[in-house]
Amino acid sequence: MSRRTGVPLHTLRTYERRRLIPALPEHGEAQIRRVELVRALLEVGGLGELEALRILGLLDCSDTTLSRLLGAVQYSLPTAGSASDDGNWARAEERAHALARARNWRVSEHNPAWRTLIQSFVVMEWLGQEDLLRLLDAYAEALEKVAEAEVRLVVERPDPESAVTRMVTATVIGDTVIAALRRLVHEHAVSRLECSSAPTA
Amino acid sequence: MSRRTGVPLHTLRTYERRRLIPALPEHGEAQIRRVELVRALLEVGGLGELEALRILGLLDCSDTTLSRLLGAVQYSLPTAGSASDDGNWARAEERAHALARARNWRVSEHNPAWRTLIQSFVVMEWLGQEDLLRLLDAYAEALEKVAEAEVRLVVERPDPESAVTRMVTATVIGDTVIAALRRLVHEHAVSRLECSSAPTA
Repeated sequence: MSRRTGVPLHTLRTYERRRLIPALPEHGEAQIRRVELVRALLEVGGLGELEALRILGLLDCSDTTLSRLLGAVQYSLPTAGSASDDGNWARAEERAHALARARNWRVSEHNPAWRTLIQSFVVMEWLGQEDLLRLLDAYAEALEKVAEAEVRLVVERPDPESAVTRMVTATVIGDTVIAALRRLVHEHAVSRLECSSAPTA
Repeated sequence: MSRRTGVPLHTLRTYERRRLIPALPEHGEAQIRRVELVRALLEVGGLGELEALRILGLLDCSDTTLSRLLGAVQYSLPTAGSASDDGNWARAEERAHALARARNWRVSEHNPAWRTLIQSFVVMEWLGQEDLLRLLDAYAEALEKVAEAEVRLVVERPDPESAVTRMVTATVIGDTVIAALRRLVHEHAVSRLECSSAPTA
């Protein structure tokens, strides 16, 4: 199990002791999925153990819909991101630069956001969530449109001081506004599934 | 000056002592803009005093372009957002809900992202940056498009456990990826100004 999921054995033993996963040595597909979920909740999502147990309880409850389950998890997630240093940095770096080339972005190699982006790719790979990379083009396209409006708002200021003041606030508050709006839109998008083809948990 | 900018007198005295602003009691428009910028850099942007002094030095240097100035500030900004509790909460709350109504979002009032969003509006108003609200529709539209792709990626998972695992990682890593891409696109958008009509600092 430790080999299949990449989770160290002593961590698996802890999960088991705290009843986050059924007693080992079960190691079917269901058990592997459960270990991956526990790791996602605790290490990626930053949930506390009690919160994680609540989510797992909801999952095991036969009349929970996927939509209610996703909602419960979403509400437990913190707003800011986290990242680790594990994995294949070079491949992730090439991926980041390939995106910028494909979209014709003129960005210096010294922009500190490269590091953040590359680190996120490394974490995705580490978690076996490379499929999330399929969202990159959608993100890039959405942000290109928004960036034009943002920069227009900055340069319409009559002097450099107010332009910089506006850029600082637009960048920092914008991060928070976007993260918040994103969670609202997620709930809306999930609620529309409810009526159609969502599997139930 | 304290009345005009809303910055307490003892804070102004500190700015003055640390040479972040010219000696008081100057209080022309230029001085007010400088105080607003210093507050934006330190309190919103979270820059250290030395970094702020470096930016101000660049600003006062006659051959700095706006594009280079914005670049230097952008590179000094932290990735995550911050917020305060000051200001008119009720008006900001109405604004947030009006946005959701206008876009027909079905979102419960218990979604914790409301609080984050409203707090951001309060901070914008406190800083006199209500103009940033003009970006809201662009943000909402961009995120609606992205959310559809994100939710599709989540519900294509065959079982609820992997769907939740993917949702946690997509939400948390997505925040970081979006914040990083946004900074890259900003640099690109600013670099395109360089050649056209950007004022010089």
